[in-house]
Amino acid sequence: MSNQTSSNTSTKTQQPLSKRELRARAQAYISQLQGETFPNSVRRYLQDEQSDIQVPVRSIQLHPTQQKDGTLRENAPLNVYDTSGPYGDPEQSLDVLKGLPKLRLNWIQQRADVEASPLPPYQEISLDEWHTEFNHQPLRAKAGKTVTQLHYARAGIITPEMQYIALRENMGHSTEPASDGVRTHRGHSFGARTPKVITAEFVRQEVAGGRAIIPANINHPEAEPMIIGRNFKVKVNANIGNSSVSSSIEEEVEKLVWSTRWGADTVMDLSTGRRIHQTREWILRNSPVPIGTVPIYQALEKVNGNVEQLNWQVFKDTLIEQAEQGVDYFTIHAGVLQEYIALTSKRVTGIVSRGGAIMAQWCRIFNQQSFLYQHFEEICQLCAAYDISLSLGDGLRPGSIADANDEAQFAELRTLGELTKIAWQYDVQVMIEGPGHVPMQLIEENMTEQLKRCHEAPFYTLGPLTTDIAPGYDHITSGIGAAMIGWYGCAMLCYVTPKEHLGLPNKEDVKQGLIAYTIAAHAADLAKGHPAAQLRDNALSKARYEFRWKDQYNLSLDPFTAKAYHDETLSHEGADDEAFCSMCGPKFCSMRLNQQIAEEAIDAG
Amino acid sequence: MSNQTSSNTSTKTQQPLSKRELRARAQAYISQLQGETFPNSVRRYLQDEQSDIQVPVRSIQLHPTQQKDGTLRENAPLNVYDTSGPYGDPEQSLDVLKGLPKLRLNWIQQRADVEASPLPPYQEISLDEWHTEFNHQPLRAKAGKTVTQLHYARAGIITPEMQYIALRENMGHSTEPASDGVRTHRGHSFGARTPKVITAEFVRQEVAGGRAIIPANINHPEAEPMIIGRNFKVKVNANIGNSSVSSSIEEEVEKLVWSTRWGADTVMDLSTGRRIHQTREWILRNSPVPIGTVPIYQALEKVNGNVEQLNWQVFKDTLIEQAEQGVDYFTIHAGVLQEYIALTSKRVTGIVSRGGAIMAQWCRIFNQQSFLYQHFEEICQLCAAYDISLSLGDGLRPGSIADANDEAQFAELRTLGELTKIAWQYDVQVMIEGPGHVPMQLIEENMTEQLKRCHEAPFYTLGPLTTDIAPGYDHITSGIGAAMIGWYGCAMLCYVTPKEHLGLPNKEDVKQGLIAYTIAAHAADLAKGHPAAQLRDNALSKARYEFRWKDQYNLSLDPFTAKAYHDETLSHEGADDEAFCSMCGPKFCSMRLNQQIAEEAIDAG
Repeated sequence: MSNQTSSNTSTKTQQPLSKRELRARAQAYISQLQGETFPNSVRRYLQDEQSDIQVPVRSIQLHPTQQKDGTLRENAPLNVYDTSGPYGDPEQSLDVLKGLPKLRLNWIQQRADVEASPLPPYQEISLDEWHTEFNHQPLRAKAGKTVTQLHYARAGIITPEMQYIALRENMGHSTEPASDGVRTHRGHSFGARTPKVITAEFVRQEVAGGRAIIPANINHPEAEPMIIGRNFKVKVNANIGNSSVSSSIEEEVEKLVWSTRWGADTVMDLSTGRRIHQTREWILRNSPVPIGTVPIYQALEKVNGNVEQLNWQVFKDTLIEQAEQGVDYFTIHAGVLQEYIALTSKRVTGIVSRGGAIMAQWCRIFNQQSFLYQHFEEICQLCAAYDISLSLGDGLRPGSIADANDEAQFAELRTLGELTKIAWQYDVQVMIEGPGHVPMQLIEENMTEQLKRCHEAPFYTLGPLTTDIAPGYDHITSGIGAAMIGWYGCAMLCYVTPKEHLGLPNKEDVKQGLIAYTIAAHAADLAKGHPAAQLRDNALSKARYEFRWKDQYNLSLDPFTAKAYHDETLSHEGADDEAFCSMCGPKFCSMRLNQQIAEEAIDAG
Repeated sequence: MSNQTSSNTSTKTQQPLSKRELRARAQAYISQLQGETFPNSVRRYLQDEQSDIQVPVRSIQLHPTQQKDGTLRENAPLNVYDTSGPYGDPEQSLDVLKGLPKLRLNWIQQRADVEASPLPPYQEISLDEWHTEFNHQPLRAKAGKTVTQLHYARAGIITPEMQYIALRENMGHSTEPASDGVRTHRGHSFGARTPKVITAEFVRQEVAGGRAIIPANINHPEAEPMIIGRNFKVKVNANIGNSSVSSSIEEEVEKLVWSTRWGADTVMDLSTGRRIHQTREWILRNSPVPIGTVPIYQALEKVNGNVEQLNWQVFKDTLIEQAEQGVDYFTIHAGVLQEYIALTSKRVTGIVSRGGAIMAQWCRIFNQQSFLYQHFEEICQLCAAYDISLSLGDGLRPGSIADANDEAQFAELRTLGELTKIAWQYDVQVMIEGPGHVPMQLIEENMTEQLKRCHEAPFYTLGPLTTDIAPGYDHITSGIGAAMIGWYGCAMLCYVTPKEHLGLPNKEDVKQGLIAYTIAAHAADLAKGHPAAQLRDNALSKARYEFRWKDQYNLSLDPFTAKAYHDETLSHEGADDEAFCSMCGPKFCSMRLNQQIAEEAIDAG
């Protein structure tokens, strides 16, 4: 996955802030976000009957419908899936220097298969200059133990993580979701099968079958369990992370929290700049969502960017360092084989994956097979000891429409399928990364080939962008492809921001990318026939039809923008109560005319 | 089609401008736009060998590629389809008070089948207060003559309009477009057949068969001919027009010109506010693209918004008035039959088309069949005398996901198919309007039903929006659906702006809507396998790979935004020449690493 984030704040014209100032700003920013909940939304917790598991949801409160006879009819609040973690709960008191509460620590310890890790060499890297109090004690599997959710699932064990996920995916309905008499469309699911009610046992089965993963490193107990698989709600990933030319640690933490507010189900920290370890520590300790990384970036940074100094040992040390910090999934480009590199020579844009390009260059320099491929089983052993999921990277993904679905791409995909089987032998959870740039008529082939070659392991794609001609708007060019591939069965969509191809996104870009991708994911859920997806559409459209303007805003993905746009042309006091807007004005409002027709129909009997 | 435009300029806090000031501002604005051509683009004219026909294109000039041996290899300029008319030609001298040159007047007169229209009653409406010099002399068909492009096409006549369109659609290639050795994907066209080279005879055949229309009122000679049909480039429409609560005539003219700059192939003037006639006159005389309207809006305005005072006579007078002004296509909701209204009673959002709601209310009040349906043959006779195309409106389109593809919608569609056959009996060109709000899995059925029921008449859809939950971002929710239905065969996509459902869009919203929709249309062209579509993607991706930053910007849909985004984080002098950007920085730039790999491959033989 190729995109990351920067801050909008230009440091060119200002004095750089001191660490103390930056830290205070991050804390102030996060406190402020936590106070600013979505309008008329309240944090609720879904409770499991048999356990103490509590799953947060955002419950959008609605106004009653004014009926013709003047009486009011209540509208039930709508629960929506909430990725914001403790930041979405105004009653929690949070401190970015201490990190989030360790939600999963008891569950992990109660399994009695982990032990404290000895002090590793990377601990030389001091975090002290930030005066943090993270108190992170790395764990690892006891010798001979495997601690992955896949291992438990195959053993028939339903973990608290699985119970949590069942509650979370159902959003509070324990029977078929009520549609209130509204016509609900049948989906077309391309073979996906989401049951009307998701049980913990269903979650277990999907994980056991390799069709879904729960990225949940034992060293990231702060994260709320979530699942990635095509028989569940389609998920969205946001990329953050600094580069050598832009942004600071505190800005990245701000972007993390901001991302979870706008619907990021997971976040990748793609930092390639200075202080990669420290940035990641801050992010992990403060993240309620799983964190992914591309470890080769830090490995390369450790050898000062010299590909000729990269080797298995540096890479392995990096994996252990990140494993003990708590990274939940690793993107590893182990499918970029030496013999595939020549297949890219006729391409318009060659190799556009950074990880893929690094490995291709390494193979060229040493005229050797990729060390990621050669040492893949060791990687799996390591992942099994922490429950790190593998996200097998598509290092040869197409970077332009012309290069889509070519032999280089599909050769690598077949290798990823072989690696999937190896990982599964080690009880390691796997998902597969996908492109990239693909014209619409070639998207479905990506999904069907992936399902076939990779044995139904979950697919995780970047877009795809359906055309190359709109830099500055690639959240849209790719939102189209993302919605389609989500419909076809892709389990998680990696966002693309408007800055893609042009620079590091700032916070506003992160939000724009996430909105485009939550649209795509929801459109995909609707098209697949996810049992509860249409409820939000129904509630919003009903509010729109009844001129409950505030409910319409509040049910939308971005209530602030919806209200601001409305008020731009009609902002007098009481405009939110009027039965028209500036688009048509009162006389030409079809909704209003229509209500008159409906009333006449009732009058006429 | 339901959306329109307003100005961002708040008049609440300022003194209203005088007419003179507004006019001066409009002229200044348009002059300024005309001066600001796209960077490194030049206006060229494609010349027909046998005639004096000249078709404008925007030719994007590119920098040479620096080759490894230090020599330069030229990159051929790329011609792109240009909707901006004379405004895109810095050498033309234009005056909004006089209107554009009358490109087609000679062609129309040479056919010798028209005569001057007698002074009609609407001429009482004075345009004098604006001191315009439009000098518009309305024409109509001579008694017994039919002046439609469909009539000529059926008679085997290739008109200059058809020749113009053949040149325009080919964009300068007279043989199969050269792909420069780059892999070109085969499209999946769902039965559409775009030839590698479009001839005037092919255009004639498509028009004769009813599969394409050329909206070209004899009273709008200023418009440059264009074609709407699924065997041609997918087109985009922008809606402008005031409402009773917002915007002025001059602002609408600014938005017209702005729309043609950003790729609007046609523009609908949906004014419902004051001075509808005058607004339209300004728009028509200054528009290089066909103009569509929904005449029922003005008819209703003439009876002060009282539906009970609407009747056939008022409507017919309105049609004649607009016909003589030069409207190129009429949206007429003649398929909203009295008996269909009850079919909407169970809907979540009832009837959301303004025209549909007006007619439904009229039928209810009078307990009569729609006068549009009853007098449909008279409407056709009138259209045949001016060559106005009919855009048969979908008055019962779904306004929410829940209401998609229901019986009300499809009952009306079948009636539109019957009306299409009637219109064709009168040699009147027809297209069919479509929804609206449709989840992805139900989009294809809209297209296949439309082709089947409406005998392959071109389809023209509003979106469709693939979810209801993102007001403020409906250019994206609908851009997804628009790209898909364009791929399936929809001939023209009516844009949706970010302000949809919330208020009248301003100029920035118009631009955002058009960019989203030109992306959708281009993605559709690529997916269908339009022979020349991929050339622009290839050129841009090649520029990107070769770090020709300026070429990358200039080949994009919005060079200004692409450059601004890049410069936000890396704006020092010379940044446009560097072989990396702030996203990855120099060490992690895959494109750069990749070029090293490619060079090594060359070195290694």
